[in-house]
Amino acid sequence: MDAVSEESLRRALAEKQSAIDAQGNAVRALKASKADKSELQGAIDALNALKLGKSSLEKKLQAAVTGGGPAAEGALTREAFRQAVGNTLERRLFYIPSFKIYGGVAGLYDYGPPGCAVKSNVLSFWRQHFVLEENMLEVDCPCVTPEEVLKASGHVDKFTDLMVKDEKTGDCHRADHLLKDFCNEKLQKDLTITAEKSQELKHVLAMLDDFSSEELGAKIKEYGITAPDTKNPLSDPYPFNLMFQTSIGPSGLIPGYMRPETAQGIFVNFKDLYYYNGNKLPFAAAQIGQAFRNEVKLLPSDAKISPRQGLLRVREFTLAEIEHFVDPEDKSHPKYLEVENLEFLMFPREEQMSGQSAKTIRLGDAVSKGIVNNETLGYFIGRVYLFLTRLGIDKERLRFRQHLANEMAHYAADCWDAEIECSYGWIECVGIADRSAYDLRAHTEKSKVALVASEKFAEPKEVEKLVITPVKKELGLAFKKRQKNIVEALEAMNEKEAMEMKSSLESKGEVEFFVCTLDKYETIKKNMVSISKEKRKEHQRVFTPSVIEPSFGIGRIIYCLFEHCFYTRPSKAGDEQLNVFRFPPLVAPIKCTVFPLVQNQKYEVVATAISRSLTAAGISHKIDVTGTSIGKRYARTDELGVPFAITVDSTTSVTVRERDSKDQIRVNVEELAAVMRSVTEGQTTWTDVWSRFPHHSAGSTNESED
Amino acid sequence: MDAVSEESLRRALAEKQSAIDAQGNAVRALKASKADKSELQGAIDALNALKLGKSSLEKKLQAAVTGGGPAAEGALTREAFRQAVGNTLERRLFYIPSFKIYGGVAGLYDYGPPGCAVKSNVLSFWRQHFVLEENMLEVDCPCVTPEEVLKASGHVDKFTDLMVKDEKTGDCHRADHLLKDFCNEKLQKDLTITAEKSQELKHVLAMLDDFSSEELGAKIKEYGITAPDTKNPLSDPYPFNLMFQTSIGPSGLIPGYMRPETAQGIFVNFKDLYYYNGNKLPFAAAQIGQAFRNEVKLLPSDAKISPRQGLLRVREFTLAEIEHFVDPEDKSHPKYLEVENLEFLMFPREEQMSGQSAKTIRLGDAVSKGIVNNETLGYFIGRVYLFLTRLGIDKERLRFRQHLANEMAHYAADCWDAEIECSYGWIECVGIADRSAYDLRAHTEKSKVALVASEKFAEPKEVEKLVITPVKKELGLAFKKRQKNIVEALEAMNEKEAMEMKSSLESKGEVEFFVCTLDKYETIKKNMVSISKEKRKEHQRVFTPSVIEPSFGIGRIIYCLFEHCFYTRPSKAGDEQLNVFRFPPLVAPIKCTVFPLVQNQKYEVVATAISRSLTAAGISHKIDVTGTSIGKRYARTDELGVPFAITVDSTTSVTVRERDSKDQIRVNVEELAAVMRSVTEGQTTWTDVWSRFPHHSAGSTNESED
Repeated sequence: MDAVSEESLRRALAEKQSAIDAQGNAVRALKASKADKSELQGAIDALNALKLGKSSLEKKLQAAVTGGGPAAEGALTREAFRQAVGNTLERRLFYIPSFKIYGGVAGLYDYGPPGCAVKSNVLSFWRQHFVLEENMLEVDCPCVTPEEVLKASGHVDKFTDLMVKDEKTGDCHRADHLLKDFCNEKLQKDLTITAEKSQELKHVLAMLDDFSSEELGAKIKEYGITAPDTKNPLSDPYPFNLMFQTSIGPSGLIPGYMRPETAQGIFVNFKDLYYYNGNKLPFAAAQIGQAFRNEVKLLPSDAKISPRQGLLRVREFTLAEIEHFVDPEDKSHPKYLEVENLEFLMFPREEQMSGQSAKTIRLGDAVSKGIVNNETLGYFIGRVYLFLTRLGIDKERLRFRQHLANEMAHYAADCWDAEIECSYGWIECVGIADRSAYDLRAHTEKSKVALVASEKFAEPKEVEKLVITPVKKELGLAFKKRQKNIVEALEAMNEKEAMEMKSSLESKGEVEFFVCTLDKYETIKKNMVSISKEKRKEHQRVFTPSVIEPSFGIGRIIYCLFEHCFYTRPSKAGDEQLNVFRFPPLVAPIKCTVFPLVQNQKYEVVATAISRSLTAAGISHKIDVTGTSIGKRYARTDELGVPFAITVDSTTSVTVRERDSKDQIRVNVEELAAVMRSVTEGQTTWTDVWSRFPHHSAGSTNESED
Repeated sequence: MDAVSEESLRRALAEKQSAIDAQGNAVRALKASKADKSELQGAIDALNALKLGKSSLEKKLQAAVTGGGPAAEGALTREAFRQAVGNTLERRLFYIPSFKIYGGVAGLYDYGPPGCAVKSNVLSFWRQHFVLEENMLEVDCPCVTPEEVLKASGHVDKFTDLMVKDEKTGDCHRADHLLKDFCNEKLQKDLTITAEKSQELKHVLAMLDDFSSEELGAKIKEYGITAPDTKNPLSDPYPFNLMFQTSIGPSGLIPGYMRPETAQGIFVNFKDLYYYNGNKLPFAAAQIGQAFRNEVKLLPSDAKISPRQGLLRVREFTLAEIEHFVDPEDKSHPKYLEVENLEFLMFPREEQMSGQSAKTIRLGDAVSKGIVNNETLGYFIGRVYLFLTRLGIDKERLRFRQHLANEMAHYAADCWDAEIECSYGWIECVGIADRSAYDLRAHTEKSKVALVASEKFAEPKEVEKLVITPVKKELGLAFKKRQKNIVEALEAMNEKEAMEMKSSLESKGEVEFFVCTLDKYETIKKNMVSISKEKRKEHQRVFTPSVIEPSFGIGRIIYCLFEHCFYTRPSKAGDEQLNVFRFPPLVAPIKCTVFPLVQNQKYEVVATAISRSLTAAGISHKIDVTGTSIGKRYARTDELGVPFAITVDSTTSVTVRERDSKDQIRVNVEELAAVMRSVTEGQTTWTDVWSRFPHHSAGSTNESED
């Protein structure tokens, strides 16, 4: 339901309430005046009719604010689905809460054996799809990072969340989360609030990310928000840095942090990497590694295991990041043609602002229309799409959402998130940003090492160069301490701004000039700055490259993959639902299981020989020699997402069953490893294999899926 | 030279000095008495002869203590070799000092592109050789670890170095390093110290690891050792914990550390992993990940880049660890037969104690003679040998050294280090320890979760069970506060010890009993303990599994591999030495380079097509289209250890050159990717390929290696 009908319902409800109040007064007045019985009854009936009307309105409003009818059922189904997939993931050790025997730590999870194998497969494919394919320069930098590096990048000062403290217990909460929960709760559960109040709360929700510490604090006070659970009063909001702090060396004098992203390790190496690449642009560097964010949990204590959405918001996670360095004047990409015809769900800024939804767009159109800022950014969006869908992400539940203006850093040229829909909604899994020259400039400034590239001209070029010379003496006299800010602001003008100022100064003698670091206008007079254009011969152009950064949250991608691959189907007897992960062979934790049909020395020898040939072919597998029925063993292996089950039911050939179709073929023992290798490595498909080998019907041996 | 000749030289030198002193006195007396000129001259000549003799003795002693003649030259060659390999590694970006543009941080290094590729290949092979081959359960746990876990493992209390502080500058130094340097310096450079003093200093060096904080402090005082560089006085030694400390969550109330090893993450998951493995032993779990140790540097400041040995002692590094859980009563291994015939250098405890050197031993003999404690330990020693030599480690410079009794933790059953010789000497790269039940017991005790395994009996067994019942009342009366230690020691007796005590108590009424936690004997009387054997029916045996732990320092292995693979050879013109890394294809950072012979559109099209086919076959490669001579391009690619260079000198076939032999063959363009894949993945060898394809002599085209 849309906002309009919600508002009209709230208004109708308020009117109904006044009518009820009025009618109630009328009834009381009749009673007091001992009116005629039938007249009183009529008034009471009218009151009840009004109450009935109110109740019906309330139901409609409730439906409107919670998504209503079928959608609300959808939410229930989502919850049940999440529970089913979550239970399977925990029971089969895809995940284990870290340090579980000590009660666990919120936001820290282990990958158990199958989870770890999936992760390792995803990372191998990432290396193949990005690093190898593009000849990227992969580096491996430490997690421990000295403060000055993260000071330069801005993380020490700005990588913070606003927190409030329970004034009695000392527990910490994110201020924005408390305010958000309060507003959502009010909107969804309190049907008495007016349409105006509802508007106000919605406005707060929309503005939440832009609120200052003071604004957040004022709203929390105004709404009387208290600590969850304890209901104690809360402190004013204060910034909490999300980095894990430590100290390097025994003196305790070198402050350091665990890196919050891997990108900085690449930026500080730009000079060496550029040299390694033969001083040529464009090139990309890449890094896979751990990153750390000391997330604040919405929980009474940080010591307890958090609810399962914890798998998406964790304190330590694997990032895979690419920094593609490119000439800001030429953001074309040599392999762009290979992706421009891809079509997928995109959600440009404009569609978001006008309340529309994501739509299928041809990538080439998005780039040519300027919806995507440049070819290189478009190229990576396309490559990310191919990466995720080949892993097994459902393309119907994958969209590329453009950042809104207020989400994007001021220096960024454009930014798109690959969002994957799972039971928690649309989750940001990959960020693809054109960060312009920001990072290299920041490190150049702090380290005093020029992180620049150059383009040598074939022959010297005569260039007109803008020269801005602030007259420091005059500026000092006029602005005292503010002189430095004004000098910097003047020197930072681009050509257009400078030439406008020049002409204004010449015509009017002075000009009002906005100095952003002072956040106000100052009056600049003609004698305070000289602006001119000079001609020079130049042999090369020296510039700071732009950075295009695709950044992959590997853990989030894997979690969404688990949800997209999970389904249930009835057992043969129909008495229970069996769980299946339909992982593509590429990511499946184990490629095949080997079962001797019955416990029998002869079959076990064959199984062992098969196992040896699979190991030699580099195919991960498992032997299951337990005596349980083939059906039970199939169910166990389906639940781990193993694509192929090999049943040893003869000494010369075996039955191979595909997980999702349950189709079975017969393959000779000697051929088996080669067939398994080609079908798991993707040289052939099951359809192909199915057409080449004799089929096997379940009835033809004494096995049965019970 | 041996210790005996050094000692006799020191004695001879001391005698010569007394003779010189006496003769000097005689000369002075003759001068004073204005003796006969020729008599005086005779005395002076005798004095000079004595001085000459002393000088000759001094030279001999100097040679004896520094290793002397050819060995000293060897040290110089080693130094030059290290410099050559180090320069190449830094210039070609195998390593980059981390955060170099900010001055770097001691003990932190990045792997640049080729280093990172080598590391990734080593880890892939590790997974193939260990995890896949043995069906190990790989897990992936966080680096951030809460304090209680590392309290249980003993790291919070015992993972410390003893430090002293420069009392004026506050700089920190390792106390044992200062004392060690002082002793070595004295022994090698001070020729005046007596044979007795020399013995004392050698004893200090031998005992260094066993010194308490007080003993270290006393020696530093006694020898008047001051801070290096500043010569300031030093503080008393104090323990410094080597873990990086941090705090989890915003409250600051949950102390945590960055893990110093990956093993604990596996131990705390034992129960789940045992269940995952069908409650069966033995099984192994494995983990690859970062570990952190806040090493103390022997440098005036921690902020500067350390000398190159820093590559071996770093603050953050990748560990690959295996925890193999096994029934302590059955340490056989099903695949032991596959390794027992391996022969390699082993250095058992006994050979070390008796001053012999490592010798080649057949692994099976070492196990059967009890030199290696058990089959499983032996199996892993064999597998580690295969792993390292397949990577390219020279088997002549690899040895397995057994820990001496004082190196080994009290709970360990046996421990061997794979040591690799490089220019820094023999470096411990893999530790292979039988840690018995220590780790699982420690976590069971602290977490109160029983980390045990059980063996169900086919039918109930009648077992005789040892029952030791200390009589606490009597013990309390006799030993007061020591009661607890004595009770624990009594209960910890094994069957043999207990039965011996029982018979002694019965015959003599009392017995002297060593209590290790008190470090002394106590008298136990008959009324203080009852010892008996009782019969019970048992359905299963519950026990704590033993852990056999191979733990790989990946960074150290890689550094040693670099040294073992590095060599130089003269350029064709003979005017310079060219660097080569003879990496096996398995670990080479790039498998082949593609050079168009001359800059020519036609050849570049072929090169691009070849590149595409190599990418599709998953072979990492590089195209070099610079116009430099083929010889220079070969030199560049040899220096990165690229095994094969593909020169595009026709549109239908190409020349493939092998790096070390420089042999060249001709291969058709269509066949190329398949040939390269089989030879880099190890299905075929170069010898094989060399015999199958037409040879190409350098003279047959216009290329030349200049």
